[in-house]
Amino acid sequence: MLEKVKTIQDLKNLTVRELPELCSDIRQKLISEVLVSGGHLASNLGVVELTVALHYVFDECDKIVWDVGHQSYVHKILTSRGENFSSLRSKDGVSGFPDCEEDERDCFNTGHAGTAISAALGLAKARDTLGQHFNVVAVVGDGSMTCGLTYEALNNVKDTNMLIVLNDNNMSISDNVGSATLNMSKLRVGKYDRNKERLKRFLLRIPLVGKPSYKFLRWCKRRAKLGYVRNSYFDNFDLKYIGIIDGNEIKDLVYYLTKIKKNVKKPTVLQIVTKKGKGYEPAEKDPEGYHSVNKYGTDTTLLESSVVVGDTLCKLASEHSEVVAITAAMAKATGLSVFNEKYPDRFYDVGIAEEHAVTFAAGLAKGGARPFVAIYSSFLQRGYDQILHDVAIQNLPVTFLIDRAGFVGEDGQTHQGLFDLSYLLQIPNMKVWTPSTYSQLSQMIVASMQENCPVAIRYPRYLSSDNRDFTGCWNVVKASNHCKLRILAVGIRLVDCALNASSGLDEVEVVNVTTVKPLDYNFLDSITKDETILTLEENVVQGGFGQSVSSYLSAKGVSVKIIGVNDCFVKHATVDQQFEQASLDCESLKHMILSLT
Amino acid sequence: MLEKVKTIQDLKNLTVRELPELCSDIRQKLISEVLVSGGHLASNLGVVELTVALHYVFDECDKIVWDVGHQSYVHKILTSRGENFSSLRSKDGVSGFPDCEEDERDCFNTGHAGTAISAALGLAKARDTLGQHFNVVAVVGDGSMTCGLTYEALNNVKDTNMLIVLNDNNMSISDNVGSATLNMSKLRVGKYDRNKERLKRFLLRIPLVGKPSYKFLRWCKRRAKLGYVRNSYFDNFDLKYIGIIDGNEIKDLVYYLTKIKKNVKKPTVLQIVTKKGKGYEPAEKDPEGYHSVNKYGTDTTLLESSVVVGDTLCKLASEHSEVVAITAAMAKATGLSVFNEKYPDRFYDVGIAEEHAVTFAAGLAKGGARPFVAIYSSFLQRGYDQILHDVAIQNLPVTFLIDRAGFVGEDGQTHQGLFDLSYLLQIPNMKVWTPSTYSQLSQMIVASMQENCPVAIRYPRYLSSDNRDFTGCWNVVKASNHCKLRILAVGIRLVDCALNASSGLDEVEVVNVTTVKPLDYNFLDSITKDETILTLEENVVQGGFGQSVSSYLSAKGVSVKIIGVNDCFVKHATVDQQFEQASLDCESLKHMILSLT
Repeated sequence: MLEKVKTIQDLKNLTVRELPELCSDIRQKLISEVLVSGGHLASNLGVVELTVALHYVFDECDKIVWDVGHQSYVHKILTSRGENFSSLRSKDGVSGFPDCEEDERDCFNTGHAGTAISAALGLAKARDTLGQHFNVVAVVGDGSMTCGLTYEALNNVKDTNMLIVLNDNNMSISDNVGSATLNMSKLRVGKYDRNKERLKRFLLRIPLVGKPSYKFLRWCKRRAKLGYVRNSYFDNFDLKYIGIIDGNEIKDLVYYLTKIKKNVKKPTVLQIVTKKGKGYEPAEKDPEGYHSVNKYGTDTTLLESSVVVGDTLCKLASEHSEVVAITAAMAKATGLSVFNEKYPDRFYDVGIAEEHAVTFAAGLAKGGARPFVAIYSSFLQRGYDQILHDVAIQNLPVTFLIDRAGFVGEDGQTHQGLFDLSYLLQIPNMKVWTPSTYSQLSQMIVASMQENCPVAIRYPRYLSSDNRDFTGCWNVVKASNHCKLRILAVGIRLVDCALNASSGLDEVEVVNVTTVKPLDYNFLDSITKDETILTLEENVVQGGFGQSVSSYLSAKGVSVKIIGVNDCFVKHATVDQQFEQASLDCESLKHMILSLT
Repeated sequence: MLEKVKTIQDLKNLTVRELPELCSDIRQKLISEVLVSGGHLASNLGVVELTVALHYVFDECDKIVWDVGHQSYVHKILTSRGENFSSLRSKDGVSGFPDCEEDERDCFNTGHAGTAISAALGLAKARDTLGQHFNVVAVVGDGSMTCGLTYEALNNVKDTNMLIVLNDNNMSISDNVGSATLNMSKLRVGKYDRNKERLKRFLLRIPLVGKPSYKFLRWCKRRAKLGYVRNSYFDNFDLKYIGIIDGNEIKDLVYYLTKIKKNVKKPTVLQIVTKKGKGYEPAEKDPEGYHSVNKYGTDTTLLESSVVVGDTLCKLASEHSEVVAITAAMAKATGLSVFNEKYPDRFYDVGIAEEHAVTFAAGLAKGGARPFVAIYSSFLQRGYDQILHDVAIQNLPVTFLIDRAGFVGEDGQTHQGLFDLSYLLQIPNMKVWTPSTYSQLSQMIVASMQENCPVAIRYPRYLSSDNRDFTGCWNVVKASNHCKLRILAVGIRLVDCALNASSGLDEVEVVNVTTVKPLDYNFLDSITKDETILTLEENVVQGGFGQSVSSYLSAKGVSVKIIGVNDCFVKHATVDQQFEQASLDCESLKHMILSLT
């Protein structure tokens, strides 16, 4: 069936009865291709029917904004990217997130959670301002309801004509949290599916009157849901509410969406329940495990930074009763699940609420606890003001554990950890450390306990297993007796790269930079005017490590060459390819070294 | 009465009947002193009774977090800073915001809105973790209920024992906005005070039975408010709700707070209604005008940047129907009130919701409207991730109008506009412009319409009225025929300073930097190795203008001396004093120039 559907018009030419087969085909395609390419599987399996129904009912000029965006694969398959879908997340291939450069029906790029309603409201207001006519739909997961940005947007929807589909799968990336979010779903009937199925089977077994009775009951239920069901959460925002609908029942979805499209003039919330991983048993059973699937062939036995973080924090917590840990809906990914198991009373998953995570940590620190906040580099951008205003001004001892710093590879531009050095270095009182080995990471976490100020430790997913220690100074990892060029490299991948590129070159020294703020001033003061400095960092150049070094050394007249990401966003590709694009790969470095010596 | 109250213990020794007189004394002190020193008057007049009651009922070890913090004057008067209160907001004097360095009963520093519940929750969780016992109170204005951070915090309060006082004065800085916020206050009885007074007078006029009847009715009402009133907004967060209480009735406040302190084990919201400006007629009539009072003697007839912004945007809007304007609860302060009056359909005040303001603007731009977002420099820190992730990645044409950039003077460290250059320059696709005259500001706003990318225009409250034009290039404002030192100054105050300091020095050139990103590369390329460069900016050095210039010129070996704020927060003082602290004043510059030439 999927082969027949080359365009949205082909989809619209199908009958409703043919849609389940299409959904089944799409599901098969997802399972077979995403397991090979890697990517977000469980969430996409959950929204197959929703995506098909939206495109079946709404017009091509209508705009659908996918919150977070990792659940947009089905949309991509239906809109011109089905044939090229095996290139998912690879260089120049299909992006794993909405990308308006690929297809204009990706009407707004997303990546971080909670942006869809704000963006959709903007599209709707622009439409009204310009006197245009089309529908705007925001598809939002329940996880994003924990996010302040979503709330701010809901608070401003007022009488704007738009549809919000709340895709409630009772799970964001980790378990959902928050009183409002739980209450919002009070209507979510636990045994919803089962009871519905029982009644249906019972009625259909009755001869003659059974089938009409079932149909009549269904009609009643549908009318009731369209007209009379209310939800106190959305009542607060004066939104019309329709729900709860089984979001894996394509016929129901088509029915309700058609009614909404025809009749509803005021802003409407359609709450649906879907099953993450639907149709693929391993993913249904372990949706968190299948949230993001590794590329086929990836070695999954490698030690990860997050494991070291979890273990070290548990050890610290066993020794210090004031240690507490905070994450923002990423307990497993940041390594804190193990902390949660051992110290549930000292663990806080605040939901997709990075702002609160940071200010809450400031309060904890002010009250005498010792908070560790574990958030990915890209997501911590949300907490920039809170780090500055709530933590740093009061110089509070909070440790930030910033995973996925630097290039992140296939997730692409919305998820790169290429700004943290810049947004952290500019904040007074902040210390910024960059481990290159697991032992350094662990030692830094412990050492941060001794600091009476905020400390940020930033690291990529994998580090080196070498036994290099954290001494508070920079480590010379390749010494030179008659040094002409010193390479100051931040992070293990660039240290390794520099070592490779300078192999056999006696005049080149390679330094593993472990503290980016403060710099190792003793080391820098030992540099003479005859040497050239080359700085390497997985970060934008502006405001990063190299500029710190350069401005410190400028008084001396030492020449500093800075290599980093040069004022651009970096799209999905492998990490190695991203290194190449930034001229940070071994070959490019060799050329650079030759030109500088 | 106030003279008797030197300590909190003195306050506790008073009878409840004596408290109104104390409140009256405090009010007189506020009016007489704030009108001279300048500061936030209306909000402090509103919370006199609340503050007195909180300190009367709660213990000194209990912790009160003042959201926003500009309403903490009464708290300061009662806690050791009453005698020194005339030094309010002056250098080394009492800060206009809570400051734990002044007194530890300022238990958490605030400034930006919406942080109190997060911080108080942190204090409460730290208390529970460490096995301590005290009460935690967050005092939050209704304006902060529009803020996502407040929502994220409420969503995490769960069963933590703490009190949230919602001080509802039906007005944040501008009028309140938002459906949820309006609905939250549905119980807010418009004619509340008047009816209550009528009933009281009626009953008290009846002989014999009148007074007991009134007392019985009051008892019934109080019990009902303590036990049975519910609020659907706070029900969502599983919070016990008590309200609405007249927050200017000290006896009522003492009654309810005593009951809450004694009995309530679960997290509780006490909603009170207060009158902004209470007790000072001009402020009661114009609470927005008396929100922030100018220092006595300030020339209030000066043209301000915000006026130019408002006028220019109105003109643009009359010519281009796609122009829309967005602000975050600061319509008047950012100059947009006049736009709102003329183009209400194209004006959006989203509440204290900077994150939404930015993502909403991204949606508007994506939909073909041309948004102008006017937010103070310090508050726009909240939108850092949204500028990067929602606006810049898609390279959307949104103009940011960033007022109060640079030193802000008396508001102090939480309000300084000293980070915007750093947090904006690091974002790819972004242009950053810095006008020094009103005509440049106006021309930049118009010119930004022609750009197909995000543009940030940052400026302080006052600019020069000179007729200097915006040409897209830097302007040499003092030429030199045999230049040895070029001073590159960002912003009018530093341009003027540089002109003064270099007056009569033939070898010094002064340049007015109008575009910080991109730099004026033609200009920079014309610089030779023999010249020295001195950069001046009201911004932290790290990641700012000077480092941009320095890293561009480093290849050439040109020596660049950077002056800006050197990795520290800057406390309240006059702007001139803040210039001195940063060595950006005329005297310091003269010395620097002499040392460089």
